[in-house]
Amino acid sequence: MSETAFINSLKSLVSSDNALGLEDDVCIISETDKGTIISSQDSICEDIHFFSNDPIDMVIKKAIRTNISDIACKGAKPYGMLLSLCLPKRYHSPEAQELIHTALKEDLEFYNLSLLGGDTTASKKLVITITIFGLCQHPIPFRKNVQLGDKIYVTGTLGLSKIGLDLRLGKSLTEYDPIFEQAYLLPSPPLNTGIALAPYMQASMDISDGLLGDLQKMIDVNHSNLGFELDYTKIPCADIDNEEYALECALSGGDDYQILFTSQHKEEELHKIAKINNTTLSCIGNINNNKNSNNYSNFSHL
Amino acid sequence: MSETAFINSLKSLVSSDNALGLEDDVCIISETDKGTIISSQDSICEDIHFFSNDPIDMVIKKAIRTNISDIACKGAKPYGMLLSLCLPKRYHSPEAQELIHTALKEDLEFYNLSLLGGDTTASKKLVITITIFGLCQHPIPFRKNVQLGDKIYVTGTLGLSKIGLDLRLGKSLTEYDPIFEQAYLLPSPPLNTGIALAPYMQASMDISDGLLGDLQKMIDVNHSNLGFELDYTKIPCADIDNEEYALECALSGGDDYQILFTSQHKEEELHKIAKINNTTLSCIGNINNNKNSNNYSNFSHL
Repeated sequence: MSETAFINSLKSLVSSDNALGLEDDVCIISETDKGTIISSQDSICEDIHFFSNDPIDMVIKKAIRTNISDIACKGAKPYGMLLSLCLPKRYHSPEAQELIHTALKEDLEFYNLSLLGGDTTASKKLVITITIFGLCQHPIPFRKNVQLGDKIYVTGTLGLSKIGLDLRLGKSLTEYDPIFEQAYLLPSPPLNTGIALAPYMQASMDISDGLLGDLQKMIDVNHSNLGFELDYTKIPCADIDNEEYALECALSGGDDYQILFTSQHKEEELHKIAKINNTTLSCIGNINNNKNSNNYSNFSHL
Repeated sequence: MSETAFINSLKSLVSSDNALGLEDDVCIISETDKGTIISSQDSICEDIHFFSNDPIDMVIKKAIRTNISDIACKGAKPYGMLLSLCLPKRYHSPEAQELIHTALKEDLEFYNLSLLGGDTTASKKLVITITIFGLCQHPIPFRKNVQLGDKIYVTGTLGLSKIGLDLRLGKSLTEYDPIFEQAYLLPSPPLNTGIALAPYMQASMDISDGLLGDLQKMIDVNHSNLGFELDYTKIPCADIDNEEYALECALSGGDDYQILFTSQHKEEELHKIAKINNTTLSCIGNINNNKNSNNYSNFSHL
């Protein structure tokens, strides 16, 4: 059974509308007079999402930020989190715990987040699970809302983290640049941009598994005949000589933690909002009604 | 740095009253017109909280039930949960995933819980993290509420799970009985009893680390001069010939997932409520103002 098949089998266990059919990375916790409280939970595991010798303070921040990303793409303002730290013995020293403490303190302050609770336990492998809570003050841009005629947008530059990972593994097709290492170690989801753009988003998600796969997931949600068409010259890639490698990383690399969304709002205004928030925004294609149009086979390297 | 010292250092990061100072196992998510939404998050890790060859369906249920326990002791009605499954390759087969699916289905139905969301990922070790949400319709019996003159109560029988663990490890001082194995594999927190008793509780917590340690934690929360006195003849232990071993397991074994609470309400009425809910209730001592009274050194075996 594939992961997707397993997740689909879990969908049959859903009995509440607040789960959003497990189709989005968030669920609804409560409607309040201040807005809708949404939540997301993500784990990152040693030897899967990071290397055993990645600096623990970076791993802590990565765990927080991958969760921030799930909330940011819905335009919600994160306000609190639960933290479960499963810590192998090598992190039981005062020095390691000081690094963990400082990393937590810095990102809690940076994102104006409250640590609400959680769990600390011994473990054989380092696993960090965070549940994040955010307040959404506009209609939530569910994935299923995607519709015919939407334009497709992405924030930031894609593929940087994949190049960083390749560099780390010694199989990069380009030279070292700290920008790639930084993108791999410490994602920086465009939170304020997400909050500012959300009222104009039709459907949204964050890019964690690679642009093409994630876009397909979004379209698959409403089980219709929708398809997409991308203008690959518009896809924001790393500025390196090997353009083909840059594009491949942007399309399929993953770990971007940028926002993918669709909208029928005036493109110019969306760009203006992104610019105010110091984020680049790229219109990379559109949603059509040709399910079989999702071929990117014109990329010879794929 | 000890785990307690580390957790204490995390307390300095708390900026919201809703975290309850990280003193309770729960936090407050939202006040609604139906009651207070509280939440708790707990991880269980392979080779720490369970053995690699424990049946996966039992492990899934244990993860759910240890979280139910945190909510049950506050008398809240659980209604939803987030599930993070970090699954090593050996659980990627259709057979394993079917077992996981069935165990989830059974306990979601048994506890009338909605699966709201979560995460599924590959992992080197099996780690399950659950965030549970419950609705509390009465003042929450915070640990810090413990006060002079309270009587101390526990539900159920203590020490069974520790005997089960000892049997598993081949170091039990008593003979095999399925009741011990069951208590170890599949905790059964007294949820309905918690909900029914909560309005009369002064302070409460679940017993996960052993009665004595947990009681001390509860009393330490309000940093006063409170102490406790236990009548060890009243502590509900396993009915075995080796009474000393039974008592030791009850006092310090842990993994009981029973409710420890204090109250000044009429003892007789509390017993009546427990009985209606098919749970035994034991009044085992009281809270006094002698911080140094917490000596259980009259137990020669300790």
